Amino acid sequence: MFRPNITAMQGYVPGEQPRGMEFVKLNTNENPFPCSPAVKAAIGRVCQSGLQRYPDPMATAFRERAAELFKHEVPGITPDWILCGNGSDDILTIVTRSFVAPGGLIRFPRPSYILYNTLAAIQGAESETVDFKSDWTLGSAFTAANERLQLAFLPNPNSPTGTVIAPDKVAKLAAALPCPLIVDEAYADFATTNCLGLVAENERVIVTRTLSKSYSLAGLRFGFAVAQPQIIEQLIKVKDSYNCDSLSIAGATAAIDDQAYFAKTRDAIIATRERMTGALRGLGFECIDSQANFVWCRHGKRESRDLYQQLKDAGVLVRYMNYAGWGEGLRISVGSDEQCDLLLAKLGGMV
Amino acid sequence: MFRPNITAMQGYVPGEQPRGMEFVKLNTNENPFPCSPAVKAAIGRVCQSGLQRYPDPMATAFRERAAELFKHEVPGITPDWILCGNGSDDILTIVTRSFVAPGGLIRFPRPSYILYNTLAAIQGAESETVDFKSDWTLGSAFTAANERLQLAFLPNPNSPTGTVIAPDKVAKLAAALPCPLIVDEAYADFATTNCLGLVAENERVIVTRTLSKSYSLAGLRFGFAVAQPQIIEQLIKVKDSYNCDSLSIAGATAAIDDQAYFAKTRDAIIATRERMTGALRGLGFECIDSQANFVWCRHGKRESRDLYQQLKDAGVLVRYMNYAGWGEGLRISVGSDEQCDLLLAKLGGMV
Repeated sequence: MFRPNITAMQGYVPGEQPRGMEFVKLNTNENPFPCSPAVKAAIGRVCQSGLQRYPDPMATAFRERAAELFKHEVPGITPDWILCGNGSDDILTIVTRSFVAPGGLIRFPRPSYILYNTLAAIQGAESETVDFKSDWTLGSAFTAANERLQLAFLPNPNSPTGTVIAPDKVAKLAAALPCPLIVDEAYADFATTNCLGLVAENERVIVTRTLSKSYSLAGLRFGFAVAQPQIIEQLIKVKDSYNCDSLSIAGATAAIDDQAYFAKTRDAIIATRERMTGALRGLGFECIDSQANFVWCRHGKRESRDLYQQLKDAGVLVRYMNYAGWGEGLRISVGSDEQCDLLLAKLGGMV
Repeated sequence: MFRPNITAMQGYVPGEQPRGMEFVKLNTNENPFPCSPAVKAAIGRVCQSGLQRYPDPMATAFRERAAELFKHEVPGITPDWILCGNGSDDILTIVTRSFVAPGGLIRFPRPSYILYNTLAAIQGAESETVDFKSDWTLGSAFTAANERLQLAFLPNPNSPTGTVIAPDKVAKLAAALPCPLIVDEAYADFATTNCLGLVAENERVIVTRTLSKSYSLAGLRFGFAVAQPQIIEQLIKVKDSYNCDSLSIAGATAAIDDQAYFAKTRDAIIATRERMTGALRGLGFECIDSQANFVWCRHGKRESRDLYQQLKDAGVLVRYMNYAGWGEGLRISVGSDEQCDLLLAKLGGMV
């Protein structure tokens, strides 16, 4: 009854979202700060005017404001360069369905976002991973010709490592690839560079963003893609007609309109990230310099899995990740200063 | 770059959702009443507690309440029999991706929901329509063997006709079909029967519902499927991890908890529907008896397209539909009594 690729595949398992019990939750890169008060006000206004009508299928209000916001980064951008989605996961699904046929191949780095593998499996396609080099860039294997290659994903900053490939290097990867390149910038707001500018130069570059992390809106589900209009025009065919609801469109628009709040909370997270990285190193962890809102680390003497479990028992959730054939470690989200202090205190008693 | 089926296809065009200008909007089967006040209260509570965390991936709160609500209709139902989606369109996409491979065949009645054709095209599959018989049931052509047949959709009540195939007849169709049958019950709350009970008897029957129409929540995007747990378990693999947001889960749960409000508004719509049907006939329209929140009609002497345009010019939006090779007509949503009176007054001056 089901397609064989569906029956055979394992479903994607998102990071633990415990209900009921209170954890210090540093496992899914949520923002410790509440969203801008302007978001709540906008949602309240929509509730007041009623929910009985369908939302704007194209989320026009958001696209207009986002085009304005990015006008210095993307020369020539208009609302037609933007596609909104029910979280950036929705966008990743749309691009996969648009470009990848069963039997096709999707390429992405290892280690990176595990979901790409699931997207390939649902589509009946194959995944191919290319290991990062020791400097966290990607070599020629990432752009190697393969007649079945239909899509490449590059999370940048990458998860779980928090590393960034510089835009000029990404431009070269995109130019060498025989297929579209999705630059998944879920964490770009915490980095010093991004690849938005490449979109204007190469129609095969699609940048995806989410409001889940840097705008504290994981619960709202809102993400978007930036690409040239002739690309967006095709992607629109593949999305569900009303993929964003009225509340999320209003909330997301209000969120990007409050850039002062955004900058303040982002700067606080970056400051805590730097402090946390230093403190973890002081406790004997090997940490990679991160440009995201999490830190990837391994302790010199303790097993990562054991530390994950000890922390969980102590009420602190972090993410233990194990990439077969590559290695394992802990991905710890940057929380508030108080959460960071608590984490460090607990770890101090364990290592 | 794009898959050939995507480039070749036309995108689905949803009913007009005009922004800015005020219409009496009777074109997309929205509910004229606001949603239950309990929905707004629940959304307010979620806003208050914050949106920075991811939602419950499985919308457990809703599934628990829905299983309770349907326990008399579906023997043995538990939350595991329910899958929530970002509108029932999300559910229709999930089942299509789960069962249909490129080159496969999807079968559905003509005239019915145009989106099924789009779902097939995105998947690279073919559509086959089977005309309704003169009594609005479906004959053996609907269940005929075809080795490429992978999925059948039956909207029940059907759109645009508002007609219903009785559950015992649907059971026979499902038993005779070589593939799963999706009974799309978007409008079932306005009908005298439904097919929920068939789910317990046949694992290949999947019933889909939406809160857009009968719960006045088109703007919230929330729908769900009811099927046996071993079916739901596979469908979960295909959905986006966090396909429903925190606000919609809370709002939808509050909506189905307020059955008194639901019954009151539904009964009002059914009463207006009966009155509107009689009045349209009095104006010379041929109307089919409807079990949904809209009426399908054609005037004996006037062209449907002309009436659509005249009504639009007069500030009243209805849906003009033309099914190639089958026929055309107007699908008019049942609004409030005031909206209905205005529609009838305008039509009275036109026909």
